[in-house]
Parts: sequence; C-alpha cells; structure tokens
Amino acid sequence: MRQSKLLSKTRKEGPKDEVSKNANLLIRAGYLSKEMAGVYSYLPLGLRVMNNIESIIRDEMNKIGGTEMKTSIIQNKEVWEKSNRWDDSVVDNWFKTKLKNGGEVGLSFTNEEAYANILRQYISSYKDLPIYPYDFKSIFRNEARSKSGILRGREFYWKALYSFSKDENEHNEFYEKAKEAYKNVFQRAGIGDLTHLTFASGGSFSKFSHEFQAITDAGEDTIYIDEKSGIVVNKEVYTEEVLKGLGLKKEELVEKKAIEVGNIFSLGTRFSEPFDLKYKNEKGEEKLVIMGSYGIGLGRLMGTVVEILSDDKGIVWPVSIAPFKVHIVEITSSNTKVKETAEKLYDTLVKNGIEVLYDDREARAGEKFNDSDLIGIPMRIVVSDKGLEKGEFEVKLRKDGEIFSLKEENICDFINEYK
Amino acid sequence: MRQSKLLSKTRKEGPKDEVSKNANLLIRAGYLSKEMAGVYSYLPLGLRVMNNIESIIRDEMNKIGGTEMKTSIIQNKEVWEKSNRWDDSVVDNWFKTKLKNGGEVGLSFTNEEAYANILRQYISSYKDLPIYPYDFKSIFRNEARSKSGILRGREFYWKALYSFSKDENEHNEFYEKAKEAYKNVFQRAGIGDLTHLTFASGGSFSKFSHEFQAITDAGEDTIYIDEKSGIVVNKEVYTEEVLKGLGLKKEELVEKKAIEVGNIFSLGTRFSEPFDLKYKNEKGEEKLVIMGSYGIGLGRLMGTVVEILSDDKGIVWPVSIAPFKVHIVEITSSNTKVKETAEKLYDTLVKNGIEVLYDDREARAGEKFNDSDLIGIPMRIVVSDKGLEKGEFEVKLRKDGEIFSLKEENICDFINEYK
Repeated sequence: MRQSKLLSKTRKEGPKDEVSKNANLLIRAGYLSKEMAGVYSYLPLGLRVMNNIESIIRDEMNKIGGTEMKTSIIQNKEVWEKSNRWDDSVVDNWFKTKLKNGGEVGLSFTNEEAYANILRQYISSYKDLPIYPYDFKSIFRNEARSKSGILRGREFYWKALYSFSKDENEHNEFYEKAKEAYKNVFQRAGIGDLTHLTFASGGSFSKFSHEFQAITDAGEDTIYIDEKSGIVVNKEVYTEEVLKGLGLKKEELVEKKAIEVGNIFSLGTRFSEPFDLKYKNEKGEEKLVIMGSYGIGLGRLMGTVVEILSDDKGIVWPVSIAPFKVHIVEITSSNTKVKETAEKLYDTLVKNGIEVLYDDREARAGEKFNDSDLIGIPMRIVVSDKGLEKGEFEVKLRKDGEIFSLKEENICDFINEYK
Repeated sequence: MRQSKLLSKTRKEGPKDEVSKNANLLIRAGYLSKEMAGVYSYLPLGLRVMNNIESIIRDEMNKIGGTEMKTSIIQNKEVWEKSNRWDDSVVDNWFKTKLKNGGEVGLSFTNEEAYANILRQYISSYKDLPIYPYDFKSIFRNEARSKSGILRGREFYWKALYSFSKDENEHNEFYEKAKEAYKNVFQRAGIGDLTHLTFASGGSFSKFSHEFQAITDAGEDTIYIDEKSGIVVNKEVYTEEVLKGLGLKKEELVEKKAIEVGNIFSLGTRFSEPFDLKYKNEKGEEKLVIMGSYGIGLGRLMGTVVEILSDDKGIVWPVSIAPFKVHIVEITSSNTKVKETAEKLYDTLVKNGIEVLYDDREARAGEKFNDSDLIGIPMRIVVSDKGLEKGEFEVKLRKDGEIFSLKEENICDFINEYK
C-alpha cells in the first residue's frame, strides 16, 4: 500500500486526555482514532493488526475443534433473567437501551447466556456433544473510568469460545487443550515468553480459573511467580491456603505487575441449569451439560504488545501481527532514479505476495524515518541517492536496528525467510 | 464439515412470531437463531454465507480504491450535534444509552458523522484526496415494527463506503465507478438479472440518489420499469416532472415490488460543512470536500437471495455465496462400504480444497433428502448401497435437479468447473 493513500498520518502528540501509553502510541502512529474515553475506531493500519490477531486466534480455535458463529449484540432481557444476571444490582456494568415499541434490551457484555440459550435448541442427545462454538464480536462494558486505552474499553472486540461437554472428564480434557491453544496464540502474537498461565479465582464449580498474564508495569493485575516450578498465582488467590495447596512458599515468590490477556473458566452447570440445557446419555438418562468459557480480548492483546514491545521511538511489531512486513522509505530526491527504483522494488515485493507499505510521500528524510520508527513495521528498506551508488538494498530491522545489505535478486527470499 | 458437528439442526416449523419467508426458511434450515423481532444470531451456516458475501463486497470495494477501517459502534453525542442529527425529533430511530459516569451515547445507525469527524483529522491538502474508506459493521435502528426478517433488522451488518473528493467532477467519476462495482456485487451474489439501478430521491445536493432494487413480491418498495430503455424509477420520484425529465411515459412503465439491496448517494457538502472538512487546493485556496455514501446491507442481501431463489422445498444458494459447494449425503446402511465410500469421497473433496458438508448422521434417507433440499447447497452427491453397484457418483444440482453421473477420478474437476 502507498503511504500517500493510507488515510492516517502520524501526529506529534496524542490527545490530551489520553494517559495510556498503548493508545497514545497507536493514535500518534495512525492506528486508532479516539471517539471518547474507552471507545476507539480502528483506522486501516489498526484494522490490519486486528485482522492478523483474529486470524491467529481463529486458526488456534479451529485446531481444537471450534465452530465459528456470530451472536447478536442486542440482548433479550428475558434470557438474562433466567440466569439472574439482568439486574443492575447483580451486573453493574451493563449498557441498556429501550425499544421504540417498549421494553428494555441490553448490549452484550459477555456471551454465556446467549450461547446456552441458542445451544439448548440443538442439544438433546449425547451425539450432539461435545461442541465448541465461538464468536468474534464487539462487547460493551459500562466502565465508570476508562483510562487504560485499548486494554480496557467500554467497547471492545473479543473472541469467546464456550465448551459444551457431557461430563467433567470430557470438559477437563478440552480445558487442557484450550490451555495449549492459548499458549500458542500468545506465542504467535510475540509475547509468549512474558505470558504466564496463572491460577485465579474459580467459582462454585471449580477451585480455580486460569488467566494468561503478560508481565508489564502497565498491568492492572498483580501476580506472584515461583520461578523454580513455573507456577504463577494471581493476587486474588494469594492466600496461605492456596499457596500451601500448590506447594508454594511466600518467600520464594516474585511479585510482578501484569495484564490479563486471556482467561479460561470452568462453568460447571452454572448456566446449563437455569437454561435447562440437558442431553440424554446412552442409557436414556437426562444429564446437565458441563460448560466452560474461554475469552481473549483482541484489542487488549494488541495494546499489550504495544506496551511490552515498543521503545522510545515508537511501536515495534512482531512480524506475525504487523500491519505490513516491510516499509519502503523513498528519500525524496531530484534524481529521478530514486523514485524509479523505489517503485520497481515496491512492485516486485507486491508481486511476490509481501505485505509492504511504501512511503512515496514528498517529505524530509528525518520526518520519514521518525514516522517509520513510530509505525513500527518490522523491516525497513531505504531507497536513496546514496543507496543507489552501492547497487544494494539495505534492510534494517525495527526490533534491534540490525542491517543487512542485499542484492536485488535476493531480497524477496530474505524477507520471506524472516519471521 | 461433518453435519454431526454442525451445531444447528433443521426444524419443521419456524418460530410462531416469524412471518417473513426469508427468516423462516433460514431459521428452519439452521442458518439463524432468532433473539427477538429484528434481532438474529448467525449460526455457523449463516456466518459462512455472510462471510462469502463480505468477501465479494470487499473485493469490489478494493478494486475501486476502497480502504477498509472499523469505526466504533458507540457514538459520541457531540459529534452528531454538529450535523444536527442527534435529536430524536430529527432522527426517530436512534438507540441511545447512558454512560455510568453520566452522559448519553448512541449506537451507530449510519456512518457519515463518524467518517467526517475522523477524516477531518487527516485531510488538509489536495494531496490527501480523493480517498474512499469503508467499514463492515453492526448497525442499529430502533424500528417500531420489525416483521421482515433479515430484510430490515433492528441490528444488522452492513458495508458503508464514503467518498471524499476534491470537486464535483472527481466525485461524479467515482460515483459511476461505484455503480459498476455495485452491479458486480449483485451479479456475483446471484441476483444480478433481477436487480435494477433505480432513480430515487436525492437531497439538497443532487436531484437523485440511486438504489439497486431487486424485484420480488416480498419487497417493501414499488418501482416503475421502462423495459425499452432500462430506466427504472422508485415510487418516491414517480412524478410527472421526473418522468418527463427522464423521457419516460407513464403508460409504458411496469410496476413491480422490489427490495432495495443497495444505495448510493451524493452528499455534496452536507457533512463537510458542519465538520469543517476542508482542504487546500494547488493554489492554496480552502475548499470544502465533496462526499458521497455507498451502502449495502449484508443480511438484507442474504435475505433477498433467499426470497428470490428459494423454492417450495427450501433455499437454493448460488455457488458464490453458498455455505458449502457440495453436500455429501450418506444413506445409512448396514453395508459398511457405504460409510467407507462416503468418508473417502469427503476426504478427497476436502483435500482438493472443495467446501463440503458431509451428512454423516444416522437418519432416514427421506429426512436427509428433505434437510438437504432445505439447506440448499448447490450440488448434492448421494452415497448409497444402490449407487455403489453402479460404480459412479451421481451429482444432482439443487437449482434444477439436473443429474450428472461421474467416475470418481473426474468428480473434483467437475465440481471445480461448476460455477
């Protein structure tokens, strides 16, 4: 894509009311536009990153047997009354609105009820189970304060998968698979080494839930890491009893700030009971379905990558979710060969299926380099007068500044091999 | 995909309160789940159709220079006050809701304001124009009645593109390109021959807008077709003056019911004025940007295809948007070779990149055929005892019942060639 057609431009300053590093950088670099606190529009650059994250998650969910669907955002009051979560005294961050012809409706703040209500139409026999439907959708939470950029939005885009299993064994087997799939997602998104499977509070049906916590000072959560065993617990279950149960010693734990980038939760029959979600087993006996929930906020994951991997010059994307793999920066010159060379290189990369942003604007070299650093595309190729003399292209990595000199005929292979 | 893992099942009857043919068939066949009047969830089958429609539209928008982004659903009151469309006395189908910490917000019912407000951050020079951003997103309209299934929802999924041009000439040039792109969309979605470019009412800035009207008795609109010239007008501009201006004679026009599946609209400076959306031309003079809007409701298009192409047995999908291209129906048999053959055929098609639904359920043949007709996948291959004897597969077209007998080695080529 040509940068002159990108729609967004970089900005020297983020909005005055934007205190989070993630949204500040993403707005300055042209990924996001702020609509209000906790509400952002995704500009073309931002949507490309979100689409890449979505593809990774979809791939991992499909690999463990997930089936994608799309539930409505408008939620039926009657459905939520069944599980006793409609009332504002029970759930305090609903967005609700009124129908023209009377009656109140809600905006999805989570999906358990919608799924239990839909699935009970289709589950009747053991042959219908297990099943693992999931959704990518916009979720709405009426947060009183919203200061963490896209880490905690009033409107955000998430993936939620729900498991419907015949019994605890079948549930536990899937739960373990989901753990692995989640690890893969964070590994592929570039923050695997900093992201820890963490014991967190459970509910009536399981002692613990599990969170995936990515270590960064920007995190709202506090976790305790046992570096020997690799066991990590969230502050909410950091009690004598839990530590003892997990074989941990307080004095050996390291306290860290972290962002919860995913969570998985055993729901037992919490929702199948009120929704009368039952199946007949092979003996013809009626049994309640066992449910689990598995969520990832895509914006939060994107924001976490920005918090963790950016440097003082701007964003540093991992190749897997970068909006483009290569940034061609043409240094405006009176020598027409510069533009010709840049255009030819751009065509070659595009023809080879490489995602490339081409800075074809007329602007000063310093401005272009600053913009390129801020936007954070993994590989930069500068086309300038000076470069032409050498007869080689210089590929510079955004991550660590390493430079590779390459002949024209080797450049596509080099780029394709870089992960 | 195996039908046993599909999640949905067919139903003999739609919901009692569902009076529209499109939603009734789509619910019975397992594409949709009804949440309330005008609000539907898309089950895996339904999402596959929507994704296919989305891909066609995206492709056509990108071909005419579109740039995809994703604007927020939550809308800022202050933004809509600028164009004087916040007040319920001006727009009577808003959904509005309240923030926890005070203040009212709306849910997107259209996108002009959001786009004008975002683009004014990035448009300053003639070099920034023209630009054609677009969005796929959920849109909310507080309809008093909602009886047309997915033809007119309270929540629906649409594509909206907005054009930002330097002047009327540049605008008109793009407007004509958009007409062609829209024609391509409806042609590719299988209703091109029945869909007419139609003169409809304009606004302060253009005499007419243009609608794409698909002829069907299920339509809420009335159009008048001049079969000689191919000129079509909507009832709202069916006046002596307009007919005269277009060289039409009342007595030569044929009246038809139709569904508006798309519309394109010249907005002039209606939004660039209140949003102060200006650019500097080459002489350094400030000029207002000229806008246009181009919408397609994806659910409405899907519903229209169902209204137009279904028959008394069920839905008939065109290949381009069908959830699967092939439906393998295995007739349950004590002869183990039947299942073996069906499994092998399924594997072969999947390996060849063909989208296939495989009815691997234990059920009566009649039930399976009825389900298959109802679901409406373009090609059906029955694997049964009887078929095995012949040593050939029979491919039956859902559209017209035509049957082709094929040897195993030719079947993938035959399927791939069928459009």
